[in-house]
Amino acid sequence: MATHCAPFTSNLRNPSPPTTTHPHSHTLQSHNCTTFTGGLKFTPSLNLKVSAMEPKSSVRVQAASSSSFGDLAVMVNDCSGKMGGAVAEAAVGAGLQLVPVCLTGPGLGRSFSVQGVSVEAVDSRDREGVMDQVLKEYPNVVVVDYTLPAAVNGNAEFYCSRGLPFVMGTTGGDREKLIEDVLKSGVYSVIAPQMGKQVVAFQAAMAIMAEQFPGAFSGYKLQVTESHQSTKVDTSGTAKAIIGSFQKLGLAYDMEEIEMVRDPKRQIEEMKVPEEHLNGHAFHTYRVVSPDGMVNFEFQHNVCGRSIYAEGTVDAVLFLAKKIRERADKKLYNMIDVLREGNMR
Amino acid sequence: MATHCAPFTSNLRNPSPPTTTHPHSHTLQSHNCTTFTGGLKFTPSLNLKVSAMEPKSSVRVQAASSSSFGDLAVMVNDCSGKMGGAVAEAAVGAGLQLVPVCLTGPGLGRSFSVQGVSVEAVDSRDREGVMDQVLKEYPNVVVVDYTLPAAVNGNAEFYCSRGLPFVMGTTGGDREKLIEDVLKSGVYSVIAPQMGKQVVAFQAAMAIMAEQFPGAFSGYKLQVTESHQSTKVDTSGTAKAIIGSFQKLGLAYDMEEIEMVRDPKRQIEEMKVPEEHLNGHAFHTYRVVSPDGMVNFEFQHNVCGRSIYAEGTVDAVLFLAKKIRERADKKLYNMIDVLREGNMR
Repeated sequence: MATHCAPFTSNLRNPSPPTTTHPHSHTLQSHNCTTFTGGLKFTPSLNLKVSAMEPKSSVRVQAASSSSFGDLAVMVNDCSGKMGGAVAEAAVGAGLQLVPVCLTGPGLGRSFSVQGVSVEAVDSRDREGVMDQVLKEYPNVVVVDYTLPAAVNGNAEFYCSRGLPFVMGTTGGDREKLIEDVLKSGVYSVIAPQMGKQVVAFQAAMAIMAEQFPGAFSGYKLQVTESHQSTKVDTSGTAKAIIGSFQKLGLAYDMEEIEMVRDPKRQIEEMKVPEEHLNGHAFHTYRVVSPDGMVNFEFQHNVCGRSIYAEGTVDAVLFLAKKIRERADKKLYNMIDVLREGNMR
Repeated sequence: MATHCAPFTSNLRNPSPPTTTHPHSHTLQSHNCTTFTGGLKFTPSLNLKVSAMEPKSSVRVQAASSSSFGDLAVMVNDCSGKMGGAVAEAAVGAGLQLVPVCLTGPGLGRSFSVQGVSVEAVDSRDREGVMDQVLKEYPNVVVVDYTLPAAVNGNAEFYCSRGLPFVMGTTGGDREKLIEDVLKSGVYSVIAPQMGKQVVAFQAAMAIMAEQFPGAFSGYKLQVTESHQSTKVDTSGTAKAIIGSFQKLGLAYDMEEIEMVRDPKRQIEEMKVPEEHLNGHAFHTYRVVSPDGMVNFEFQHNVCGRSIYAEGTVDAVLFLAKKIRERADKKLYNMIDVLREGNMR
């Protein structure tokens, strides 16, 4: 995961100056050797080429899809990763232009395809030059980031330095610094730890209920069970946020009481997780029972795979494009803002 | 159910003027022969005395319980009925004073007990005199009405004419006229078709989510199943209200699609209704599924018996007492207002 200042090895080293300035670019900050730290996620089944991509293919960037959203284009870093790949697919599915280039971890450049569209993943050490070309071809690009926690701050600094509006779907990193950097730069961005729009809507509804009707469930008992793939050690932030709302509603509950199910047998039998999604799911059940046991509420949000996050990210991209077009004063958004905008498709 | 101007048969005919004026009474309107129309609910197992109660017992009204709520007292019409009885029990359980007199249908006066407290149900034709006595003994009385749809408007007119603050838990009747009469009279009241506070909270949360995040579930599919006792022919208003919110959230749904379960076998096996509550339950399940089937939400509110409505009614009484004490400008409330007040116990 060590980062180093690799010398440029392609003609991207000295790209010709962009002929088109990004409409939201601002004074570039100097970011010497601020590379993608921590590397990027990759689909293990893909053949990882360790050599940098051929420069020619990165500069001859072409729209991956005709679009009904004007000249909006989406660059997904890193769409050779699982989550980035899902977003790229959802973007193409929504009729958006996918920039056929993305940035990947140092030494991990390679070619691959997204829904039949050929995409080049370029070594992040070449990012300045790549971005010059991308901005030239796609002045109205919105960047999506699904990389690794360790890369969050470095990547955001880079996007800010280039005036690139972006959706940060990657969790972790120094979130305070992230927000601070973004606000300072004035770039448009959506930053959210949970991109599942409908889950965020439910979470927000519970928060609003708690705020407006404090103590409405006083005396009631809460039981929370969640199931995730066995590799997830901690419980979900979404569950914690929703439990926080239940606490305000008057339910006495200790976060330690959350029942975390990681055993595949129980996941299938009790939680009804489809077997093919044992390795990628987020199931949550909240049971609320009255003191006399006569009243039962149950709330479930059960997610398999990545499509909800990918679709939510595409919604965030559309939202950001709208805000840019409107020259909105507010620059930093979250998924609640996206939700408030209503359906944009 | 015909009403008639029965001549007074007891000394309640000419009661001595109340020595204490109800603090919220106003100019009495003339209500000649406006009796409880439609009769009142009764527990069939109780021995119904058709004679009017002995007047003496109605004037020697005594507190059924010591109270930590000052001199607040609750009169439940008709607490010889199932729902009224449940409210009377909940009121005593909450430490409130229960007025040991209530009004019942013409010719149906009798004595009975609520949690060991002796209560007289008095023929409603004697209501003017009864109320004089009640107001004399319990100037800070709040009336609760759980009678019959056909009695709603006549009863409300009577409460208004006597300046009696009241909680109307009875459904049906002419609701527009009810609201109009109450507003005109200036009495304090809580009027709600659904007294289950926690169900109302959930319903309101869904309404708020729909209002704030329109279209958040666009493309998703909705499935609604509800189970009630087999005597309930139509579907619940609560289900319809919640489905209305789902529609605003972008879910295409026709009310006709609601699956109403009335078969006891299915209620027990599929809906998990406890057998002892087959004759009194309200179970609702809403399933929301993403277009690709990968995301499932499920919301359930399952109520057995009457305790949730009884407890919610007691909350409404406490709320009303508070508003009266505060001399609030607003006079007419619903359960959302009660919920906003927070936990009052």
